[in-house]
Amino acid sequence: MPTYTAPTKDMQFVLHDVLGISSQDIPGYEDLDRDFTGAILEEAGKIASEVLFPLNEVGDRQGCTLENGVVRTPEGFKEGFDQLRDGGWTSLDCDPEYGGQGLPYIMYTCVGEVLSASNMAFNMYYGLTHGAYSAIHVHGTDEQKQKWLPKMVTCEWTGTMNLTEPHAGTDLGMMRTKAVPQEDGSYKISGQKIFISAGDHDMSENVIHLVLAKIQGGPDGIKGVSLFIVPKFKVNDDGSLGPRNGVSVGKIEEKMGIHGNSTCVMNYDEAEGYLLGTEHKGMRAMFTMMNEARLGVGLQGYAQAEVAYQNALAYAVDRLQGRDVTGAKNPDGPADPLIVHPDIRRNLMDQKAFVEGARAFVFWGATMIDRAMRAEDKDADGLISLLTPVIKGFLTDKGYEMATNAQQVYGGHGYIEEWGMSQYVRDARIAMIYEGANGVQALDLVGRKLAQDGGKHVMAFFEMIKSFCTEHKDDEDMAGFVGPLKEASKDLQAAGMYFMQEGMKNPNAALSGSYDFMHMMGHVCLGLMWARMAKTAQDALKQDGADRDFLEAKIATARYYMARQLPATKMHLGRIQTGPETVMALESTAF
Amino acid sequence: MPTYTAPTKDMQFVLHDVLGISSQDIPGYEDLDRDFTGAILEEAGKIASEVLFPLNEVGDRQGCTLENGVVRTPEGFKEGFDQLRDGGWTSLDCDPEYGGQGLPYIMYTCVGEVLSASNMAFNMYYGLTHGAYSAIHVHGTDEQKQKWLPKMVTCEWTGTMNLTEPHAGTDLGMMRTKAVPQEDGSYKISGQKIFISAGDHDMSENVIHLVLAKIQGGPDGIKGVSLFIVPKFKVNDDGSLGPRNGVSVGKIEEKMGIHGNSTCVMNYDEAEGYLLGTEHKGMRAMFTMMNEARLGVGLQGYAQAEVAYQNALAYAVDRLQGRDVTGAKNPDGPADPLIVHPDIRRNLMDQKAFVEGARAFVFWGATMIDRAMRAEDKDADGLISLLTPVIKGFLTDKGYEMATNAQQVYGGHGYIEEWGMSQYVRDARIAMIYEGANGVQALDLVGRKLAQDGGKHVMAFFEMIKSFCTEHKDDEDMAGFVGPLKEASKDLQAAGMYFMQEGMKNPNAALSGSYDFMHMMGHVCLGLMWARMAKTAQDALKQDGADRDFLEAKIATARYYMARQLPATKMHLGRIQTGPETVMALESTAF
Repeated sequence: MPTYTAPTKDMQFVLHDVLGISSQDIPGYEDLDRDFTGAILEEAGKIASEVLFPLNEVGDRQGCTLENGVVRTPEGFKEGFDQLRDGGWTSLDCDPEYGGQGLPYIMYTCVGEVLSASNMAFNMYYGLTHGAYSAIHVHGTDEQKQKWLPKMVTCEWTGTMNLTEPHAGTDLGMMRTKAVPQEDGSYKISGQKIFISAGDHDMSENVIHLVLAKIQGGPDGIKGVSLFIVPKFKVNDDGSLGPRNGVSVGKIEEKMGIHGNSTCVMNYDEAEGYLLGTEHKGMRAMFTMMNEARLGVGLQGYAQAEVAYQNALAYAVDRLQGRDVTGAKNPDGPADPLIVHPDIRRNLMDQKAFVEGARAFVFWGATMIDRAMRAEDKDADGLISLLTPVIKGFLTDKGYEMATNAQQVYGGHGYIEEWGMSQYVRDARIAMIYEGANGVQALDLVGRKLAQDGGKHVMAFFEMIKSFCTEHKDDEDMAGFVGPLKEASKDLQAAGMYFMQEGMKNPNAALSGSYDFMHMMGHVCLGLMWARMAKTAQDALKQDGADRDFLEAKIATARYYMARQLPATKMHLGRIQTGPETVMALESTAF
Repeated sequence: MPTYTAPTKDMQFVLHDVLGISSQDIPGYEDLDRDFTGAILEEAGKIASEVLFPLNEVGDRQGCTLENGVVRTPEGFKEGFDQLRDGGWTSLDCDPEYGGQGLPYIMYTCVGEVLSASNMAFNMYYGLTHGAYSAIHVHGTDEQKQKWLPKMVTCEWTGTMNLTEPHAGTDLGMMRTKAVPQEDGSYKISGQKIFISAGDHDMSENVIHLVLAKIQGGPDGIKGVSLFIVPKFKVNDDGSLGPRNGVSVGKIEEKMGIHGNSTCVMNYDEAEGYLLGTEHKGMRAMFTMMNEARLGVGLQGYAQAEVAYQNALAYAVDRLQGRDVTGAKNPDGPADPLIVHPDIRRNLMDQKAFVEGARAFVFWGATMIDRAMRAEDKDADGLISLLTPVIKGFLTDKGYEMATNAQQVYGGHGYIEEWGMSQYVRDARIAMIYEGANGVQALDLVGRKLAQDGGKHVMAFFEMIKSFCTEHKDDEDMAGFVGPLKEASKDLQAAGMYFMQEGMKNPNAALSGSYDFMHMMGHVCLGLMWARMAKTAQDALKQDGADRDFLEAKIATARYYMARQLPATKMHLGRIQTGPETVMALESTAF
C-alpha cells in the first residue's frame, strides 16, 4: 500500500545549497538557517506521514456528504484538522499581529509541498483559508483585520473564494450575484456561486466567504465587480458568533478526485456582507493574491507527482518481472526487479527530473514573492508575475502527466483504486483546471505578461539566463548544461520574436502559439534550475564530507533533463512558427 | 449532458474513398459496397445512441457488485445485452458454420468503434467473448468448436481471457496455476487469476473461461504454459448445462474506470478444463489472437477520444465566454462561444486530427488482418504484426491525452462527474495498461518486430511511404503533405539505423529509445493516413456533387496534422540519439 516520506534532504539542498536562502538579503530570511528549516521540515514530514497521509485514501473513498444542509467531512478529518491547527501549521507565515508566526512565504511553500503531497484534498481547507486571510490582510481595514484574521490564522474559522457562477467561469464579467447597499454600510448579497472548494464543512466554527458580486448601479462587466466578506455565521462585536447568515449549501459536487474536499454550490440569499477594499475594484483585490494562489496550484501539480513517483519507484524496486537483457540482476530470484528495464527507467527518470526541477522552480518563485513583499522589490514582483502562469500551467500539466506515468509503472495494479495510484492522477487533474484553466494561463503569459512594463521582465529573464551561461562558459564541467540551456533559451526568444513580429499584424498568430510557448518557457525554467543544481552539486562535491551519492545522482538527473526533456523547445518553436493558419482554418460549423 | 452520434460519414469516407474496400481483392470484400456498409453503420449507430450510450453513465455510477458469489451488472445492462444479441451484433464476423454472419473483420472493427465509443465497459463483455471465440475457432478441435462456439457467437455464453496472476503480469512464465491431467482426457485446473474482465456477471447463461496454466512436469517458464477451456457450468453432451464447475469469483476490483465491467479475481479449485491446442503451446495460441486483440484496444483508445471530442466540440460551440480578440463573433450575445478562442481551437484541432487519423489507421490495419486471414497474404500478416504495437501503444496514449484535452475544454465542469467528461478519461486510461502495458508494446516493436523476418516488414513499410511520396512528388497540391511525411519517415529511419548500429553493441541503446520510437512510428503512420486522406479529398473535390465542406475540412485537418503534430518525430529522434547513458546512469539505489 502507498507510503509518503517528506523529501527533506532534497528540500534542504534546494533551500540552502541552490538558493542560499539564509544569506539572501530579504528581511526574515536571516533566521532561516539549515537547522531551523530542517527542524520545521522534519516536523511537517511527521504530521504528513502520520496524520494527513493515512487520511488521504479515506477522504477519497468516503468523500463529503450533505445532509439537511450540513456538510460532513470524511472520518478522521476533524481530528486531523485539529492536529494541524494545534501544531501551529496554519499560522506559519501569518502576521504576528494577528497571531501568526511571521515566517517568510518560502516556509509556507516548502511545508505546503509536504502537506499537499500527503493529502491534497485535506490541505485545501487550510490553503483556501490562507488565501482568504491574505486578501483580508492586504485589502481589509484595521477593524476588519482585527475582527476576522485572528481566528482565520488558527483556522478556527476557515475561508473560501467565491468567483465562479454557472454561466460565468473565466469570463467573470458576466456574473450576476448582486450586492445591495444597506444603511448600516453593509450589503445584502444574493446569487449563486459554484465550484466553491471547502465551501462548507464540520471542521471549523465559522466559514468566512470572500464573494465577488456586483453593486447595483456600478459599471458593466468585469469593471463593476466588488469583493465582500460574507460569513456563514455573523460575528458579534465581542467576537462571539451571532445568528446564521443567509448562506447555504445547494449541493456538493461529485468530482473526479479531491473527494475529501467539499466542492459546494453556495447560495446567497440576502446574506449580510461587508465590502473588502474599494467598490468595483474586486478584481484588483483578487489579482493581488493571484501570484500566490497560482504558485500554490503549481505546487499541487508537482506535489502529486512527487508522492506518485515515490510509490512508483518503490514498486519498481520491489516488483519482480522479467530479466535484464544484459544479464540477470537478481539471479537467485524468479525474476529481476522492474527497475532494471530501460523503459521503466526512462519513465522513472522523467518523473524524477520533473519533480526535482519543479521543486527548485517553485521554491525559487517563493523567494521572489518574499523579495517582492518583504523587500518591496519591484523587479522581483515583475519576474514572479511573468513566471506565475508558467508555474501554474506547465507544472500542473506535467504533474498530471507524471502522475499518470507513475501509475503506469504499476501495470494493472495501477488501475485498481486499492493501490492508491489512481487517486494521485485523479487529484492532480483538477490543478490543470482551477485557479484559471491552463489555456487561460497561456493567454495571460503571451497576451499580457510578456509585454508587461514594456517587456522589461521577460528581457530580465533572458538576461539572467545569458549571464548564467556566460559565467560558466569556460567551465568544462558545465559544458553539458550551459550548451543545452543556451539553445533552449534561444528557441524561446525566437518564439517571442515571432509573436512580436506577427502578433502585431494578427493577434491570433501569438494566441495560436500560446500553449506551446507556456510549455517552452516551462522547459527553459526547469533547464535553468537543472543547470544551477548541477553547478551547485559539482561545487559541493569538491568539499570534504560531501554526500557523494546524492550529489552525483543530482548531476546525472540534470544530464537526463538536458538530454531528454529540454530539447522539446524545438518542437514547440516549430509549431509556433507554422503560424495561426492551420489552427484558424476551419469555420466553427466545419469541425 | 453528453451525447454520442456515430460518425458514419467519416467512416464511410475511410472505408470507401480512402481504402476502397469493395474493390480490394480480399475474399468477402466484394459485397462491402457503400450502401451495405452504410446500412450497417446506420443501425449500429442507432443501438449505440439509443441503448448503449444511455447505459454508459449508469454503468459508471453503479458499477458491478458481488453478493454471495453472484455478480450483478448495473441496471439495464441485461436488457441492453439482450438487444445487442437480438440485433445480431455479436455474430457479425463469426463463422457461418457456427451461426455467424461471416462478414470480414473490417466490419467488426468499424462497428466496434461505435459500440466502444458509446459504452466501453459494456462492449467489453462482447469483445472478450469475441476473443475467446477466435481462440477456440483457430485452435479448437472440430468437436470443441461444435460444442462451444454456437452459443458464444450469440453471446448466450460469454467468454474471458485468464492470463495474469498476482505475481505474474507481463512475465507470465512465473505463473503458478496448474493443470493436472485426468484419465478422461480432461484436466483439473487450480490457481488464482486476477484482472479478469467480464469474469462473471448476470447477462449470460454460462461463462467460458480461457485459462493459461502449467501442466505438471512440463518445461519451466513460459514454454510450459498451456491453454484450457474452463466453463463456469459444465456442459452436457446434448449441449444442456450441467453442474457448476470449480470456478468462483474471489472479488470484484474497484477500478479507476470501466466500472460497468466486472473485473474479477477468479479462483479455480480443481475446475474441470479442456486443453485447447497443443500442450505447452498455450502462448502460441494466445499470440495468434494478439494482433486482433491489440488492434481492438487501440480502437478503444481513439473511440474514447472520439466521444470526448464530440462533446468538447458541442460545448465549445455552445458555451459563451469571453470575446474573440479580432472582433466579437456573437455581438448580440453576452459573450462569444469558446470556439472563437485560438487556444480552444488548437485543442479541438489536436483532437480532431488525432481521432480521424487514428480511425483511418485502425481501419487500414483491419483490412490487413482480413488480407492475412482471408487471402492468406504473408506480407499483410507481417505488416500488421509490425504495426500492432504502434496501434495499441500510440493510439491508447494519445487517446487518453486527447480525452483529457476534451475534458479541459469544459473548464471546471469537466471535473464534475455529472458532465460525463471524467468518465471518458478514466475509461480510456485502462487501454494504456491492459493487453500488454504500453512499455511492453514498445519493447515488442523495437526488440522483436523490427527485426522480424530479417527486417522485411519494416523495409516494406518504408518502401510503401517512399512510393507514395514518389508517386505524388510532382503534384503541387500534395507538396504540403509529401514533404512533411518524407521528413518524418526519414527521422524514423534514422532512429532505426541508430538502433541497428548501437543496439548490437548495447541492447539498452535500443531499449532506452523504444518508447520514443513507438511514438515516432505512430506519428509517421498518422502522417501517411493524413497524406492519403488529403489526396483522396483533393480528387473527390474535382468530381461533380462533391461534399465540399466535408472534403475541405478534411484537407485543412490534414494540414494541421502536418504542421503541428507530425514534426514531433524530430524530438523523439533527438531523444533516441542521446543514447542510453542518461537513462541507465543511476544505480537502482540512487534514485
